[in-house]
Amino acid sequence: MTYCLAIKLEEGLVFCSDSRTNAGPDQVDVYSKQHIFLDSEDRQMVLLSAGNLATTQAVVSRMGRDLAEHSSPNIHDMHYLSDVADYVGQISQEVQKKYAPDGPKSGFNPKASFILGGQIKGSEPELFLIYPEGNHIQPSRRNPFFQIGETKYGKPILDRILEHETPHEIAMRCALVSMDSTIRSSATVGPPIEIMYLKRDQFGGPAKSYSLTRNDPYLVKLRETWNQNLLQAFSELPSMAEMFEGD
Amino acid sequence: MTYCLAIKLEEGLVFCSDSRTNAGPDQVDVYSKQHIFLDSEDRQMVLLSAGNLATTQAVVSRMGRDLAEHSSPNIHDMHYLSDVADYVGQISQEVQKKYAPDGPKSGFNPKASFILGGQIKGSEPELFLIYPEGNHIQPSRRNPFFQIGETKYGKPILDRILEHETPHEIAMRCALVSMDSTIRSSATVGPPIEIMYLKRDQFGGPAKSYSLTRNDPYLVKLRETWNQNLLQAFSELPSMAEMFEGD
Repeated sequence: MTYCLAIKLEEGLVFCSDSRTNAGPDQVDVYSKQHIFLDSEDRQMVLLSAGNLATTQAVVSRMGRDLAEHSSPNIHDMHYLSDVADYVGQISQEVQKKYAPDGPKSGFNPKASFILGGQIKGSEPELFLIYPEGNHIQPSRRNPFFQIGETKYGKPILDRILEHETPHEIAMRCALVSMDSTIRSSATVGPPIEIMYLKRDQFGGPAKSYSLTRNDPYLVKLRETWNQNLLQAFSELPSMAEMFEGD
Repeated sequence: MTYCLAIKLEEGLVFCSDSRTNAGPDQVDVYSKQHIFLDSEDRQMVLLSAGNLATTQAVVSRMGRDLAEHSSPNIHDMHYLSDVADYVGQISQEVQKKYAPDGPKSGFNPKASFILGGQIKGSEPELFLIYPEGNHIQPSRRNPFFQIGETKYGKPILDRILEHETPHEIAMRCALVSMDSTIRSSATVGPPIEIMYLKRDQFGGPAKSYSLTRNDPYLVKLRETWNQNLLQAFSELPSMAEMFEGD
């Protein structure tokens, strides 16, 4: 499993992903699921991936090869990020069909999901969730984030905190809390945590990008403080005695 | 979907369940998933159910009929709660095989899960999770709770708070927070919330049992306070600036 999330803010885009891959409990590995394409002067793109590792690697490697060979299409030539999302979905479908022409079989599922985010000069920053079937959606202002993989444990905190206008520092902190809670609850999601902020209209410059190991000092402090604060928040809830007294 | 949870404490047992049943978005109904058997002088049992509604209703109705007709076995005659768990699992298997002898088919899944909790005089209070396959497990002291249905959204808070020694009032409050967060995040889980406390060794007496509608004053207060406290807890987390400064 995997847990990736991306947030579309007024200020820019935030990406966060874990690094655990497993094919059964005896084959657990560390792989980055955050693929950065093009740090060029007119476009920036990040692709997060979840699902079958062979499929996601094939998709990413094909994107890189098309770019290197100046094939058409390639991510450097496209004018719209939605075309890039389409292109990722098409490659994903091709790869899946190559290995499972009749769909997933017992014990083998080639499906993969992606989140594509970025900005092409002249357009707004955009975010796309690309389904295993190759089609894609964009987030709403009210629900400005996408998740793929092991999404449920870490969703409630995102629902409570994130809005389109949230400052990027708060959104990044919220993503880390969501990721850390998921790591705590699911053995299929694990560190290092990769987190990145792509600021709107800032092309060519290096993005803020961090890889946090389990014992990263900030992460440890965040985890401990969150645990303490949550216990405190819980202890201050109204007592159920009030409820019982009413009877 | 459904969300049920039960907690085994030193003091006794706590049960909590939602009441939403759906067979597609046009067929959403309110059904209790908390089935109380025998409030007699030597035993108390509660069964929580999730999964196919026809299966769970058939199981519960068969248990009642066996009891009324003094058939053998019935839940009044058994000496061990684990035998009752076996019996529930067997009926569940029979019902599932009756309607789907070759297993779940596309568009039809007769599976159901149960949590059985209670106490028979002379034994400890016990809790069993009964799988769709009919077999069952008991909780550990370290992880003293079971969940069935839509379990992930509400699990992190249980992981943080619940221990075998937790007082029942705290455990009930924690169950309500877990349930309310799940209702917020999933449209397939809905009120009223039923919550019950079975005190250890208290046979024959009525258990503390409540059904809370969405606008129940205590639930509203709990929900609002929890939301405020969580936002407060989040706002007091260490700033990411510290992390950036280190670079």
